[in-house]
Amino acid sequence: MQKSLFVTLEGGEGVGKSTQLKLLQSALQSLGVTVLTTREPGGSPGAEDLRQVLLFGKHPLSQRSEILTHFAARYDHIDQVINPALEAGTVVICDRFTDSTMAYQGYGRANGHAETLDLINALQAHLGRDPDLTFLLEAPRDVARLRLAARGAPTDRYEQSDEAFHARVLHGFQTIAEQNPHRVKRIKAHGVSPEEINSLIVKEIRQRLQSG
Amino acid sequence: MQKSLFVTLEGGEGVGKSTQLKLLQSALQSLGVTVLTTREPGGSPGAEDLRQVLLFGKHPLSQRSEILTHFAARYDHIDQVINPALEAGTVVICDRFTDSTMAYQGYGRANGHAETLDLINALQAHLGRDPDLTFLLEAPRDVARLRLAARGAPTDRYEQSDEAFHARVLHGFQTIAEQNPHRVKRIKAHGVSPEEINSLIVKEIRQRLQSG
Repeated sequence: MQKSLFVTLEGGEGVGKSTQLKLLQSALQSLGVTVLTTREPGGSPGAEDLRQVLLFGKHPLSQRSEILTHFAARYDHIDQVINPALEAGTVVICDRFTDSTMAYQGYGRANGHAETLDLINALQAHLGRDPDLTFLLEAPRDVARLRLAARGAPTDRYEQSDEAFHARVLHGFQTIAEQNPHRVKRIKAHGVSPEEINSLIVKEIRQRLQSG
Repeated sequence: MQKSLFVTLEGGEGVGKSTQLKLLQSALQSLGVTVLTTREPGGSPGAEDLRQVLLFGKHPLSQRSEILTHFAARYDHIDQVINPALEAGTVVICDRFTDSTMAYQGYGRANGHAETLDLINALQAHLGRDPDLTFLLEAPRDVARLRLAARGAPTDRYEQSDEAFHARVLHGFQTIAEQNPHRVKRIKAHGVSPEEINSLIVKEIRQRLQSG
């Protein structure tokens, strides 16, 4: 059986995560690797119900409650989808995970407030499952904003937030990358073709699958 | 300004909590006490959205995710309703709180599994707000079941569970009461009129409001 691997893609909106998810799935499948692609918030039927409350609910939750709800969805996703897949020897690729909660809620909304970061870290510790490898796609906010405008899709609660919020989110992702250099690989996601980015990611994943 | 007090009513289904909530509200108001009555899961607009997922969702959440979702609703309820009311000097009476999560999820569903109890205790500790006083209404399950049948209301996920589950829940409530003798007052809720129970509860609350 192949080695299982839990890979997450992270970054702000408009950096090309969805494109990379699709390219990565194709590339790994053509190498004969069994792959499950998924995304948060959501990814399991119950977590998708919670996603609706989080992204499109009419009644904004308190900051702390929003964090708990993200983790409620995440615990279901881990328990019912991700852990069973990993135990079956699958490579799981997830679009957003706890790093997004840390960047958006911990740094974006709560501005790095120590109690909020502690709550997120405690919830992640109780979860008992960390990604093996994380790719952080990085692009300046003005590049990302142009991509979002070109996409023309309906915007959710996060995409509507102000620019100071998005600057704090990007700072949050940078901090996470600096604190976790072994797990988090930073990828320049502007001025480079999606195919080139895909090659870098595939190379790194193949190394991890062949090592140890 | 009157002293604020955070009071919770606990117990299995069919022990008469809703009746006591109404009687208590009237009795305290007639004493000139400012009262807010509320209930969980729910009690704030966002928490009510989460209640729908918890009690009537089509996709059962994993055990751990169910606990997180209860606390997500609880954090919003505390942040947006209960804490502001307590800070304004109100007596808050809440139908169910963390003791219910401990009894139903910790003892009922997870059968007292140590990791599950630890998760619940950690989430309660981070919440930073404990009830000042809890009334645990106790009646044998056969008495409670007759009351539920007489009520004829549509049953939710918990009321449909099997009798072994309900026995574990009652054992959970007893354990919580034994571990928290100062906070939790046990009340015999069968063979006694609702008015007599109400008198006992009102007497205890008046003592707490007059002390300290």
